[in-house]
Amino acid sequence: MPVTAIREEDVKDTQYLGKPRKLLEGLGKISGLTRYTGDITVPGMLHMRPLLSPYGHAKIISIDKGAAEKVPGVVAVLSAEDLVTRERTITSRSDAILAKDKVLFVGQPVVAVVAETEAAAADGLEKVVVKYEELPVISNHKKAMAADAHVIWPEGLPSSDIEEITHAAVEEQKSELEGAPSNVYKTSKYERGDIEAGFAEADVTVEQSYDLAAAYQGYMETHSVVAEPNPLDGGITLHTSTQGQFGVRNKVASILGLKQGKVRVIPMTVGGGFGSKYGTIEPLAAAVAYTINKPVRLMLSRSEDLQTTTPGPAAAINLKLGAKQDGTICAIQADITLDAGVFGFEFGGLWPLLLGSNYKVGNLLMNTTEVITNKSETGAYRAPGAPHTTFAMESSIDELARKLNMDPVEFRLKNLSETGDPMVNGQPWPSLGIRTCLEALKEHPAWTERSTGEDEGIGIAVSSWPCAFSPSASVCRLDTDGTVRVQVGSVDISGVNSSLVLVAAEVLGVNPDDVELIQGDTNMGPFAPGSGGSQVTYSVSGAVEAAAQEVRTQVLELAAEQLEARLEDLELKDGAVQVKGVPSSAIKLAKLASIAETTAGGHGPIIGEGRSAIEKNAPGTIAHLAKVAVDRDTGQVKIKQYVAIQDVGFALNPMMVEGQIHGGVVQGLGMGIFEDFGYDDNGQLTGGSFMDYAMPRATDVPNIEAILLNNPSPHGPFGARGVGEPPITAGGAVIANAIRDAVGVRVPQTPIKPPVLWKAISEQS
Amino acid sequence: MPVTAIREEDVKDTQYLGKPRKLLEGLGKISGLTRYTGDITVPGMLHMRPLLSPYGHAKIISIDKGAAEKVPGVVAVLSAEDLVTRERTITSRSDAILAKDKVLFVGQPVVAVVAETEAAAADGLEKVVVKYEELPVISNHKKAMAADAHVIWPEGLPSSDIEEITHAAVEEQKSELEGAPSNVYKTSKYERGDIEAGFAEADVTVEQSYDLAAAYQGYMETHSVVAEPNPLDGGITLHTSTQGQFGVRNKVASILGLKQGKVRVIPMTVGGGFGSKYGTIEPLAAAVAYTINKPVRLMLSRSEDLQTTTPGPAAAINLKLGAKQDGTICAIQADITLDAGVFGFEFGGLWPLLLGSNYKVGNLLMNTTEVITNKSETGAYRAPGAPHTTFAMESSIDELARKLNMDPVEFRLKNLSETGDPMVNGQPWPSLGIRTCLEALKEHPAWTERSTGEDEGIGIAVSSWPCAFSPSASVCRLDTDGTVRVQVGSVDISGVNSSLVLVAAEVLGVNPDDVELIQGDTNMGPFAPGSGGSQVTYSVSGAVEAAAQEVRTQVLELAAEQLEARLEDLELKDGAVQVKGVPSSAIKLAKLASIAETTAGGHGPIIGEGRSAIEKNAPGTIAHLAKVAVDRDTGQVKIKQYVAIQDVGFALNPMMVEGQIHGGVVQGLGMGIFEDFGYDDNGQLTGGSFMDYAMPRATDVPNIEAILLNNPSPHGPFGARGVGEPPITAGGAVIANAIRDAVGVRVPQTPIKPPVLWKAISEQS
Repeated sequence: MPVTAIREEDVKDTQYLGKPRKLLEGLGKISGLTRYTGDITVPGMLHMRPLLSPYGHAKIISIDKGAAEKVPGVVAVLSAEDLVTRERTITSRSDAILAKDKVLFVGQPVVAVVAETEAAAADGLEKVVVKYEELPVISNHKKAMAADAHVIWPEGLPSSDIEEITHAAVEEQKSELEGAPSNVYKTSKYERGDIEAGFAEADVTVEQSYDLAAAYQGYMETHSVVAEPNPLDGGITLHTSTQGQFGVRNKVASILGLKQGKVRVIPMTVGGGFGSKYGTIEPLAAAVAYTINKPVRLMLSRSEDLQTTTPGPAAAINLKLGAKQDGTICAIQADITLDAGVFGFEFGGLWPLLLGSNYKVGNLLMNTTEVITNKSETGAYRAPGAPHTTFAMESSIDELARKLNMDPVEFRLKNLSETGDPMVNGQPWPSLGIRTCLEALKEHPAWTERSTGEDEGIGIAVSSWPCAFSPSASVCRLDTDGTVRVQVGSVDISGVNSSLVLVAAEVLGVNPDDVELIQGDTNMGPFAPGSGGSQVTYSVSGAVEAAAQEVRTQVLELAAEQLEARLEDLELKDGAVQVKGVPSSAIKLAKLASIAETTAGGHGPIIGEGRSAIEKNAPGTIAHLAKVAVDRDTGQVKIKQYVAIQDVGFALNPMMVEGQIHGGVVQGLGMGIFEDFGYDDNGQLTGGSFMDYAMPRATDVPNIEAILLNNPSPHGPFGARGVGEPPITAGGAVIANAIRDAVGVRVPQTPIKPPVLWKAISEQS
Repeated sequence: MPVTAIREEDVKDTQYLGKPRKLLEGLGKISGLTRYTGDITVPGMLHMRPLLSPYGHAKIISIDKGAAEKVPGVVAVLSAEDLVTRERTITSRSDAILAKDKVLFVGQPVVAVVAETEAAAADGLEKVVVKYEELPVISNHKKAMAADAHVIWPEGLPSSDIEEITHAAVEEQKSELEGAPSNVYKTSKYERGDIEAGFAEADVTVEQSYDLAAAYQGYMETHSVVAEPNPLDGGITLHTSTQGQFGVRNKVASILGLKQGKVRVIPMTVGGGFGSKYGTIEPLAAAVAYTINKPVRLMLSRSEDLQTTTPGPAAAINLKLGAKQDGTICAIQADITLDAGVFGFEFGGLWPLLLGSNYKVGNLLMNTTEVITNKSETGAYRAPGAPHTTFAMESSIDELARKLNMDPVEFRLKNLSETGDPMVNGQPWPSLGIRTCLEALKEHPAWTERSTGEDEGIGIAVSSWPCAFSPSASVCRLDTDGTVRVQVGSVDISGVNSSLVLVAAEVLGVNPDDVELIQGDTNMGPFAPGSGGSQVTYSVSGAVEAAAQEVRTQVLELAAEQLEARLEDLELKDGAVQVKGVPSSAIKLAKLASIAETTAGGHGPIIGEGRSAIEKNAPGTIAHLAKVAVDRDTGQVKIKQYVAIQDVGFALNPMMVEGQIHGGVVQGLGMGIFEDFGYDDNGQLTGGSFMDYAMPRATDVPNIEAILLNNPSPHGPFGARGVGEPPITAGGAVIANAIRDAVGVRVPQTPIKPPVLWKAISEQS
């Protein structure tokens, strides 16, 4: 199965770090014993079902709750005006708790029915009668930008007064909009050199328009929350499936008009988030529970989840590249149009950076246009934007290499950005390993010994993700049974705890099985950023290391007294402190903890805190290769080989990183050839269930060879880089390039479903 | 109502410390919203009822579980041999999970019935048939010490391999027992000077035998626990009403044969503990849940709780005092006999120290004999021993003053121990305020302006409690809404959190309402000692102070950068840092926290840990006065006035300390004149319900004037001393002395119930 390329020399000085070790979460998840939000009950808990809008855009004429209120077991039937919340402008999907006056997208919650059982709530829901008056529906970005388009927000997109969660490290460049009201709510422009002169220099150009589908994050566990008012302090406690408890807390506090500290958010084990779980339904559950002053559970059905959460956006990219005969890229021009849903898209500013920063170029022009449509707010989906931009750029790069008759690896190597080269926004790249990844691919047998049969082809692609980073803290303490307990505020969405235990184990010389991770809620803390942007391992490891170091210091000082030895003669090994070279003169950590906790006038219990505030990001980069076989008669693509090479900086726990790569590749393939989160002209979902929305199944997925390169980042702990997002970015691009290699057609759209490919092949011949 | 004697000058430099402030726990408790262990449910939770032994001593011939197992809803019927535990010697009440072969006291659990409902468990219990063969019952210490007594443990009291919870700071002196097997399991002897010479010097002597009843701790919430096995790691989680989660964890881990870390103990709000809640029924609940691998709740009924927990012991004290005509005490001799129940009594070693250390004396002899009886193990009840020893000593002192015709205040002042004087064990008293208390009483109008009508009398008594202390730790962090969160491992049984918030508020210049206490469980930590021995405020305040100081340092450093000011020019005030004298140049703590949590390359989140390991104890001392009216015809005593003066060192939160004094005084009065935890000759409880066991009611309790003296201890934080235990110690003694003053009879026993007093009065006349 997977093979890693971790070099012996990278881990020769470590006992645990950098060496594969079991995932802590594994047993609980495969045995079904892990407790999720849906398993939580609190005394007196009620159940909520939301009534969702069936229309993409409509006025609410009336809501008749009478019949619903009479259903046995129904406790409350609430519409917007019933909710006790702060007076505010509604500016986001999560803040649009229940629709007032108008519905803006199919799936917008309109009424909440609360009952003693799920079934009674569902029964009540059927009796609610809402009368609507339909309004024109803007179902995609083309309709949104039409000259005579109905303008969804005639006074402009309402702007937020809620502090938003920062996802990525790169700041975006916005421009103010002028002119008549329209559905365009944001544009940005990046320019470098002279684009016209650039194309004038070019010997060959490639121009292509790409049509890129939206995708749903496809987590196994739908959005779920239990909201429990605390009548004692007028606050509320949430148990929820979230990627970031502090962000959810701040959002709910703002909407309810409470001090942050009155909202306690307890993050539960997350059954998949992938960017979606930053607080979409928590405000609804919280506001309802707060209003009726009773605990309420809301678990979305899959159908509700598909309709009412925040999928990734659809987009169009027009990309024109120019290169000289010697293979030097001399011009990159792009127009990006983002179909951002009804409240905009948080990450649009990233797109031009993701699209144009991987290659050196003197002349560049990038325009981004973000438009409003009658769909749920679009949100983050693992490396938001990068699968789309990589699809466009790597498809066009492939075509350009072909036009130049150059080897696609050599052509890329000639042009790839290096550390210090400017990104699209002019900022220099921090330590960048994209070239390292491609050089590793160049030497890999999948490339050096490549061969293809009839209708088979090989495609490659490279990509990068800047990776976010944030300050964080940790507390570490030594218990009297020798257990090292590490408290962090980060949510483990990806096995990160299975790396963090190794950090503490390494510092303290204890077996990782004797390290326990404690997950803090918003009250307990300590602070950590939300688990997104590939930032948690990078941001939190340093805090854990610092806290463990403080414990190490205390342990050694106490041991020096107990062993009557000098500090410099001591070493920590196998859960004990011993005099170097004298294993008989040793004292166990458990014993030291007991001494510390019982000695009057002594050291006091062994506990340390650690903080981390890294200065720079550590981009993660990849080079992927796929070999496909195309069935010309059906357009079916069979993936025969997949190699995923990734610069991970330093893999703290390679097994966890491999898992991340496997998952990311599968999701990238899904976006590339399976998944289309489409809407019809009325704004209705065309894939409103897993019967219609095609995610890859096990039989669709090839053996994935994950290769981890340790190319240390100079900025983070142990040289680590963010690893979660890069692997999702290239799946579509490598398959598109492999198809091009196999059957000679360039398909400029995602997903490349069989009918699409069949049609392209048909039109070619 | 109560008046404190806190001096203005003691609190002139503090903003919050030392000034009365509301109790954090109050609203929840009076509104019924506080959640106790009995309010906890976990998925799949079952209910347990224990079958208790009806015999004080018997062989178990057979247990027939068949009929019980057939009761609908019954899931398991377990006896000792069914339980999955470590092989071990049973050495304590808590370890005697279910009786094997023999029962040793009425109330010993024999069988556990587990069912889907409480009712089904109770139904099942009725169907269990246990056949016993009765054995001789040793129901009190006199019977135990009879020459022909049946020896309960012919091979000696089994000795523990379980680490016990240390309650008090004073180490005990044991002596090895020799000779034939008997029910005496421990004796100790303290000797100073020459006791015979001492009495030879004496001009007057007083000798008296005191018969002192056992008492039940009388908490409102019976022992309750929810035990939930964790099949993932083979461990178990307990939610429980306990005074010390770490001790319970270690006990349960030892009995189940698990690593401590596999047992997670989550301490719930405690509805009263008073020394009883250190893990009596947790091992039973844990072993049953662990055996059937299902979550189980066990809540004792009041009747079960009275029978099967660990009340304080009964005792006999023979005390002989000698004094010279000038009022100098020259000899103290005592024989203490402790009726210790079937597994012994942890705190017997303290008794001679408590009895004889308050007065200077050159010649002293104290013998203590602890004997086994067929009763539940005796345990701690708030200041274990001190109400009994104070009753004896202060009664005899009163008689001695009368014989000398001396003023009882002056006589005591002449003889009271001072800082540095030897205690019974020869160790010097640390800073001791007993004289200060009595001097304050001497000046109090209740003494200076005392007057009594017919059959009215005034009694006084002094007492001390050494107060325990242990290392502890705390974590403090600043949140982005300006809330200061303080994490501690101590259980709040007495409002201690309402003091700890003031410590953090004072250090950080924030309103105490903006300080939140976070209660750690055994996994979270940090470590703190169990809440007993009056040690928590004394032991934990320093850790909280240190953690808050670390936060203060971080806050000031960051503020200095932000305000471009020098550190020494800054002050913390009203939740902000400001340049001294320039309120316009200020930055809020909330803002600083946000900056810290978001600034790349900055300070990192604001968080600090603090540790404390005090070197010496800080005794708490009291002087109490009561005025009573005696009804000669009924023996009824009406308490007309009560003054409780206490050296509290420094009252961090005087309102909390007053509450402690009120509660302690009421319990002391209960032990003095109401409560008799008696057993008949068969070892059956004579007061097996609150219909029979008389605790004081509101109408029995006088107005209590609590006077707090700030006589700082040099060893602990802010000069604080332990305050919880001293106020319970003197209730019986002052009433006995007041009765003597009123009607001229000395009643040498507790409780002085009306029939007892009536009889004494009758015999006198």
